[in-house]
Amino acid sequence: MASVKVFGSPTSAEVARVLTCLFEKEIEFQLIRVDTYKGQKRLPEYLKLQPFGQALTFEDGKTTLVDSRAICRHLAEKYVEQGNKDLLGSGTLERASIEQWLQTEAQNFDQPSSALVFNLAFPPLPGLVPDEEVIERSKKRLAQVLDIYEQRLDETKYLAGDKFTLADLSHLPNTERLVSNKECRSLFEARKNVFKWCKAILGRASWKRVVEMQKEPPHIV
Amino acid sequence: MASVKVFGSPTSAEVARVLTCLFEKEIEFQLIRVDTYKGQKRLPEYLKLQPFGQALTFEDGKTTLVDSRAICRHLAEKYVEQGNKDLLGSGTLERASIEQWLQTEAQNFDQPSSALVFNLAFPPLPGLVPDEEVIERSKKRLAQVLDIYEQRLDETKYLAGDKFTLADLSHLPNTERLVSNKECRSLFEARKNVFKWCKAILGRASWKRVVEMQKEPPHIV
Repeated sequence: MASVKVFGSPTSAEVARVLTCLFEKEIEFQLIRVDTYKGQKRLPEYLKLQPFGQALTFEDGKTTLVDSRAICRHLAEKYVEQGNKDLLGSGTLERASIEQWLQTEAQNFDQPSSALVFNLAFPPLPGLVPDEEVIERSKKRLAQVLDIYEQRLDETKYLAGDKFTLADLSHLPNTERLVSNKECRSLFEARKNVFKWCKAILGRASWKRVVEMQKEPPHIV
Repeated sequence: MASVKVFGSPTSAEVARVLTCLFEKEIEFQLIRVDTYKGQKRLPEYLKLQPFGQALTFEDGKTTLVDSRAICRHLAEKYVEQGNKDLLGSGTLERASIEQWLQTEAQNFDQPSSALVFNLAFPPLPGLVPDEEVIERSKKRLAQVLDIYEQRLDETKYLAGDKFTLADLSHLPNTERLVSNKECRSLFEARKNVFKWCKAILGRASWKRVVEMQKEPPHIV
């Protein structure tokens, strides 16, 4: 029986980040999903998105964590000899660079990209009108962040160096949704290095597996 | 938040029986599924079939039950004014007839039909060779049971009378699998009344919903 347990839906960005890390590390785990049915309908998955992350719980033996980035660090550290060994680098200097870009993701990329996903990349939630002011402000902010990425990715293939690490992995869920959205794709496409990086990270086998898991069985209404 | 919780996979006959009853009764519930992943593979759903029912747990407030037929009785009794009100009949005589055919299903139909589902209606489990002796014996036994059904269904449209009840519902999961299997379909098709009954019960909206739920997202190996 797997000791690693993930509670949540793969459609949540938080959960998707953790699943990608588990696949990169080739760790056996159990995914526990909860679906609510009313009459013969399943309530839509995206109602459970909860972009601020409450939808995720993680257990590894006696360790319980709820923050997706903390979970990814835990996995990369505890299962250091398993699967992809580069996710947190192999020395102090590499680790420092990875941590710097992980923080950039959490503090600068995540907020505007989540706001855009929430307002644009899903069918609107019942009663929710996309907030045009938030959309415009988020696009501007994300453009600034991606300008910095564009410079950085002129020097290195991935954010923290020449290898795919947790710093890149952490960007996957929102990047996938925004690159797939016609109103947001140009933000990435307009930046040559950023777009090349997008294609490299979105093409990873671990991530493709998560995208498959996000496709649910047909939803009968 | 739904107080009714079902833990298990819709591909299990036990779980499918309970889900059908919940849909017939239009009861809000949560379905909690557990999938185990190893490397990038999900272990196949049918490994969790556990034809003897350990794969199901049911909670309704403080009531916990594990037997699918007991759960269906509980739902029909507790939520008597909701959804389909005929599942346990409306009087002592009707109830007695329903209970008789529920017992016939549990004591006579279930064993040979489950053995056939297990040996024939799934991709063989790794290391499991279909047992020809069991298959032959089960077919003979099921044919005898269906002969009795054929007589009964000459008198009434459904097993316990002219309405669809728990007695019929309880047959759905194995009947679906066997009617869909080329080696077993003839057992039903050869009996005119039985086959007509099969088509009536397999066509119910509640059951079709469960069949949809049994279709999982693509399984990448």
